Amino acid sequence: MQAIVKEQRAPGLTVTTVPKPSAGPGEVLIRVRHAGVCGTDLHIADWDAWAQGRLKPPLVVGHEFAGEIVALGDGVTELNVGQLQCRTGNGHICRNTRIIGVDRDGAFAEFIAMPATNVLALDGIPTEIGAIMDPMGNAFHAVLAAEIPGSTVFVAGCGPIGCFAVGIARAAGASRVIASDVNPKRLALAAKMGAHVTVNAAKDDVVRAVLGATAGEGADVVCEMSGVPAAVHQAFAAVRMGGRVQLLGLPTGAVPVDFANEIIFKGLLVYGVIGRKMYQTWHQMRRFLSAGLFDPRPVITHRFPLTRIDDALATIRAGDAGKVILEIA
Amino acid sequence: MQAIVKEQRAPGLTVTTVPKPSAGPGEVLIRVRHAGVCGTDLHIADWDAWAQGRLKPPLVVGHEFAGEIVALGDGVTELNVGQLQCRTGNGHICRNTRIIGVDRDGAFAEFIAMPATNVLALDGIPTEIGAIMDPMGNAFHAVLAAEIPGSTVFVAGCGPIGCFAVGIARAAGASRVIASDVNPKRLALAAKMGAHVTVNAAKDDVVRAVLGATAGEGADVVCEMSGVPAAVHQAFAAVRMGGRVQLLGLPTGAVPVDFANEIIFKGLLVYGVIGRKMYQTWHQMRRFLSAGLFDPRPVITHRFPLTRIDDALATIRAGDAGKVILEIA
Amino acid sequence: MQAIVKEQRAPGLTVTTVPKPSAGPGEVLIRVRHAGVCGTDLHIADWDAWAQGRLKPPLVVGHEFAGEIVALGDGVTELNVGQLQCRTGNGHICRNTRIIGVDRDGAFAEFIAMPATNVLALDGIPTEIGAIMDPMGNAFHAVLAAEIPGSTVFVAGCGPIGCFAVGIARAAGASRVIASDVNPKRLALAAKMGAHVTVNAAKDDVVRAVLGATAGEGADVVCEMSGVPAAVHQAFAAVRMGGRVQLLGLPTGAVPVDFANEIIFKGLLVYGVIGRKMYQTWHQMRRFLSAGLFDPRPVITHRFPLTRIDDALATIRAGDAGKVILEIA
Amino acid sequence: MQAIVKEQRAPGLTVTTVPKPSAGPGEVLIRVRHAGVCGTDLHIADWDAWAQGRLKPPLVVGHEFAGEIVALGDGVTELNVGQLQCRTGNGHICRNTRIIGVDRDGAFAEFIAMPATNVLALDGIPTEIGAIMDPMGNAFHAVLAAEIPGSTVFVAGCGPIGCFAVGIARAAGASRVIASDVNPKRLALAAKMGAHVTVNAAKDDVVRAVLGATAGEGADVVCEMSGVPAAVHQAFAAVRMGGRVQLLGLPTGAVPVDFANEIIFKGLLVYGVIGRKMYQTWHQMRRFLSAGLFDPRPVITHRFPLTRIDDALATIRAGDAGKVILEIA
Repeated sequence: MQAIVKEQRAPGLTVTTVPKPSAGPGEVLIRVRHAGVCGTDLHIADWDAWAQGRLKPPLVVGHEFAGEIVALGDGVTELNVGQLQCRTGNGHICRNTRIIGVDRDGAFAEFIAMPATNVLALDGIPTEIGAIMDPMGNAFHAVLAAEIPGSTVFVAGCGPIGCFAVGIARAAGASRVIASDVNPKRLALAAKMGAHVTVNAAKDDVVRAVLGATAGEGADVVCEMSGVPAAVHQAFAAVRMGGRVQLLGLPTGAVPVDFANEIIFKGLLVYGVIGRKMYQTWHQMRRFLSAGLFDPRPVITHRFPLTRIDDALATIRAGDAGKVILEIA
Repeated sequence: MQAIVKEQRAPGLTVTTVPKPSAGPGEVLIRVRHAGVCGTDLHIADWDAWAQGRLKPPLVVGHEFAGEIVALGDGVTELNVGQLQCRTGNGHICRNTRIIGVDRDGAFAEFIAMPATNVLALDGIPTEIGAIMDPMGNAFHAVLAAEIPGSTVFVAGCGPIGCFAVGIARAAGASRVIASDVNPKRLALAAKMGAHVTVNAAKDDVVRAVLGATAGEGADVVCEMSGVPAAVHQAFAAVRMGGRVQLLGLPTGAVPVDFANEIIFKGLLVYGVIGRKMYQTWHQMRRFLSAGLFDPRPVITHRFPLTRIDDALATIRAGDAGKVILEIA
Repeated sequence: MQAIVKEQRAPGLTVTTVPKPSAGPGEVLIRVRHAGVCGTDLHIADWDAWAQGRLKPPLVVGHEFAGEIVALGDGVTELNVGQLQCRTGNGHICRNTRIIGVDRDGAFAEFIAMPATNVLALDGIPTEIGAIMDPMGNAFHAVLAAEIPGSTVFVAGCGPIGCFAVGIARAAGASRVIASDVNPKRLALAAKMGAHVTVNAAKDDVVRAVLGATAGEGADVVCEMSGVPAAVHQAFAAVRMGGRVQLLGLPTGAVPVDFANEIIFKGLLVYGVIGRKMYQTWHQMRRFLSAGLFDPRPVITHRFPLTRIDDALATIRAGDAGKVILEIA
Repeated sequence: MQAIVKEQRAPGLTVTTVPKPSAGPGEVLIRVRHAGVCGTDLHIADWDAWAQGRLKPPLVVGHEFAGEIVALGDGVTELNVGQLQCRTGNGHICRNTRIIGVDRDGAFAEFIAMPATNVLALDGIPTEIGAIMDPMGNAFHAVLAAEIPGSTVFVAGCGPIGCFAVGIARAAGASRVIASDVNPKRLALAAKMGAHVTVNAAKDDVVRAVLGATAGEGADVVCEMSGVPAAVHQAFAAVRMGGRVQLLGLPTGAVPVDFANEIIFKGLLVYGVIGRKMYQTWHQMRRFLSAGLFDPRPVITHRFPLTRIDDALATIRAGDAGKVILEIA
C-alpha cells in the first residue's frame, strides 16, 4: 500500500510503498480516509532534536486520522466492519503510551492496524472531522474547563487550535470573544469562526484592545494557544483580576515571569492544559458536533492527496494555513 | 398620580389617584415606565391566606418595574437624574427585607421613591426588559448554576420563567432543549425561545419524550419550573444517572417522594433555587442581554395600560399568557 | 471447605462444607481472613421479596471481605501469592455487575476465587479493616463530597456507616459534629468516634439540638444515614440556609416532602449518595487509614467465627451493634 | 499617648508621644492591646523604594492589631464599648483602600480610631491571636482554597504564614505535610505546628524529599510561601501531575519559567493567592479557632513592649523568628 515513511535518520519524508498491515489479536484494520497534518509531523520531517531522540526509522508517520474498519482481529467483539472510526487522543495523556506515527507505524497510509480499545465510533461524524478531533479535543478541554456562558474570552494565537477555541467559546455562550495573531489570514479565519474582535499583534496593542473590548476590566478567560513569550505576558495582562488563564501553547525555553504582578496580585488561576479528561471531552465534542453547535470545517483550509505531503508541510510552514489535511480514500 | 391600590382587606384592586411620593434622604424618585405583573400580584388581588397574613392595606401594589430617575434625595451621589434603572430582586434574598408592593408602596403607579442602594442602572437595556429582570434573574440562576455547554436540558413548565430558561439554556450552548407544559400556546412560546422538542404533558408521555430526545440516557440537567407534583416526579425520572435537578416551581403542600429510587440510586444532585447570588446573576444577565445572546421579548405576550390591570390579571388567570406587563409612561 | 450457604428458596442460612474453588484464568484464589456481615446478608437470610427476586440458591453468601492471595490463575501478573487484598465495592456502581454473595458464590467461606481485576492490594491495612472498606467507602464518599474543613456536620443515624461518617468528618476538620440515633449504645459509639454532641432522637428534639450546637444557624452539612422518614425531615430542618444534605439511608416507600419550605426556600443542595467515584474514594480511604487520621476499629463491636453466623445476624437484628464481622482465618 | 512614628523621609522609626485620637462620626476608638510586626513594617523602617513612593511622614505605623473598644463615635450602633475587636484585612483586597499604618495613622500606639465598618468582634478570641488574624487569614485562604482532606501538602517557606499553613493543613485532614526552609529554627517551628517531614533546603534535595514522602507521586497541593525563585521551581517540580500550586510568596523581579515542562505537561492548576474572600475566610478562621482545631500561638515566638520596636525589627531581620508581636496594653 502507499504510505508516507520516515526512511532515514535525516530530514525529509518519502512517499513509497510498504506492506499492507493486518489486524492482529485485539486489533482492527482501518482504511484511512482523512488524516490531519500537524506540527509534530513537521518536527519529524525536519528531523529536529526531539525527533532524533525519539524516532527509530523506518516508520510510517501520521497520528491524526479517521477511516473505516475493514477487518477485525481475533477477540474484537465491540466493533464492526464498515464502521467509521477515529483514534483516541490518548498519546497526550500517558507518557508511556506508544504513539502511532512516532513510536510505531502511523496513519499517513492507505491502511493502519490499531488496538480495538484505542478506537472510537464516529456515529455519523464525517471522517474529515474525525481526522481532526485530536487537536479539536485540546481546544474543547482548554475552553470548557473554564466557565464560559456570558464570559468574555480572549484567545491568543489563531492557529487551528486557537480557531477551534474561538468557535467553541461562541457555541458555549461567551458574550465577547477577542482573538489575536500576527497573521491576517489567521485572524480572518478567527473572525469566520465567530471572534467579535480580532487584533493584529504585529501592529496593534493587544492588551489595550482586550481591555477596550471588555469595558476596561480584562477578559474573564484567556486561552494562550501560541506559545509565544510575548503572548504569554499579554495573557496575564489582559485577563481580569481573579480571572483564569488556560495555557496550551508551548513556549520554547524559559520565559521570565514577574509572579507578584502578573499572577499573585491579580489573584489568577492559571491552568496547564494537557488533554486529560479523555472520555468527558470526547463526549462533549460529539455533542457539540452532532447538535450543530460547532462546525470546525472552515478551519480546514487545505486538502492534499497523500502524494503531496511536501506541499502540505510547505503550506503549514508558510504560517497562514488553518488545518491541513490529507485526503487518502 | 395614578396608581393601582389595594384599598381594603378584601378581594380586588382599585385604579385610583394617590399623592405623588418624593425622594427622602438616600432615596431616588423614579418615573415608572414598565412594570411586570406576576403571580404575587394575583395572590394580592385574590386576597388569599398569604396576602391576608402579610399585607396592611391601603397600599400601592407592584414589585417588578423599571423607569427613569427624575429626582435625587439628599446624600445620593452615585445616580443621576435621567438614568434608566430597575429595582434589584433582593426581596427574594433576605426575608427581613420590606418588599415593595407587599410591605410598602409599590410600582404600579406613575412614580415610586426607592432607596438609592436598591437601584441598578440599566446601561442601555430597554425598560420593558428592565421591568422583567426580576423573574428573568431567577431563570438565569436556575439554569447557569448547572453546567450547560453541550448538555441536554429539560425544562418542565413553560410559564414566563420556564420560557426564559429555554432561551438561556440555548444561549449557553445546550446541545438539546426539551420543554413540557399542558398548554399548547406556552409550548409554542417555548419553541420560539429555542426548545428543540416540546411535549404536551396533558397528552404525551413526558419521560419517554425526554429519553427519546437524549438517546435513552435522560437529560443532564432538569429545570422544574411548574411546581406541579406530577412534573416533579417527571423531573426525577427524566434526568440521567448522576444528573442535576434544579427545583424552582413551588408545589403546594407535600409531594410523596420515593427517595431511594427517585434520588439516591440515581446519584442525583437536587438544588433548591432561590435567587441568591444577586450581583453575579445580575451581571451575567446584563452580559447576555447586551451581547445579544438572549432576547426575552418574545416571552412578553401582553401589554396593558395601568388602567387595565383587571384585564392583565384575567390574562394571567387564563393560563396561556407569557409575561404580562403594564406600560405606564 | 467450610462455608455459609443459602441452600433453599426459604428463610435461613446453613454452615456446611462445599468444594474449595480454584483460580480460573484471570482469577486469584484468596484465603478469606475477615468478612463483614451487613444488612444485605440479613435480607438474604430472611428471604425477603428482594432476595426472592434476585438469588438463585444454592449459593455461598457474603460480599464484604479481605484475605490473602494463595494462588494465581493463568494470565494474572500484577498480583502475588501472599498479598493481602480486599474486593472492590463496585457492586454499587454498575447494576449489571454480578455481585459476589448475591449473584455468584461469595466470601463467607474459607476460600474464594475472584477476577484479579476486582482485587485491590491492602498495602499494610489489616484484613479486619479491609473487610469493611466497602461500607466505609460509602461513608467516605458521603462525607467528603461536601466541603468539611471548618464546617459543622450533623450525622443522622449512627449505624456503622453513620459512625464511620462521624470519624471521617472529624478527621477532615469539621468544627462541630452532631450525631443522632434512637439507640444509646450507637450514640455512645458515635461519641467514641468523635461526635461533639449526641442526641437521642427517641427522647430529645433533634432539630433544636442541632440549632443549639450551631449558634442557631443549622449545620453546614447533613449526612442522612438512617433512611427513617422522620430523620429525613430533620435533615432538611437542621441544615442551614444554603447548606448541603447528603442522603444515603434508604427510606422504604414514599416520604411526603414539602419542597417549597424544606428544600427550595432554603436554597439547599441535596445529593443522592451512591458510591460512584470508586478509585478516588478508595484512594482517599487508604490515605486516611495509612496516615492514621481515621481508625474504624472502634465501630467493630462484635466478632464471630464462621460457624456462629446466626449469632452474628441476631446481634445485628438487636439494633445496637456497630459493625459485625466474621473471623475466618 | 505613646506611639511608634515614622517621622522623617529617612530610615528609622521613633518611639514618641502623639495626641490621643478621638472617634469621629462612624468611628470607634480602640485601646490597642496587641499588634503584629510584619515585613511591611521593615520596609517602612528601612525606607526602601516602595516606602519612599507610598508614605507621607509623619505617620504612626503598624497595621496588624487587636484591642478593646473604649469609645463610639456618632452613628455607631452595632458595636459596644468594652468589646474586643480586630481590624479586617481588607487592605489586601482593594488597592484603593487607605491602609492604616501606611496611608493613615496606624496601630503601634496606645489608641487608634477606626471606621466601625472595618472592625470585627473577636467573640472570645484573645487579642494576641486577634492581632495576627490578618496574616493568618492569608494562610487560611491559601490552604483551604485547595482540597485538603486526605491530601499530601508541601509548604515551601516556614515564616509565620508558612507555619500557620502547616497547622491549618493538619487541622483540615492533610494526610502528610512536608515543610521546607533554610532555617533550622523555622523548621523546628513547622514541626511543632504539625509538619510530618521537614526539609532543610540549604542542605537537602527538597524535591527528592517531597517525592520520597509521597510514594514518588509528588504532593497533591503545594503552598509556596517564600517568594524565593528556587522554591518556586521546587514547587512546580514537587507537585504531582494534575496537582495544585498556591503561590503566596512574592518573588522580587522576574523568575524564568519553563512553562511547557513545569506547568503545562504536568496539567497544573496554579493559583495566585491574594486574600480575597474576606468574610468567608474570616468565618472559617473563627470556626477553626473556636473549635480548637488550630492554635497559632506556638508561631508567636517573640513579644516586645512598644518601646522595643527596634529589637522587634532586629529579631525579624535575623530570619529565624516566627511571628513577632508588640504587647501594648
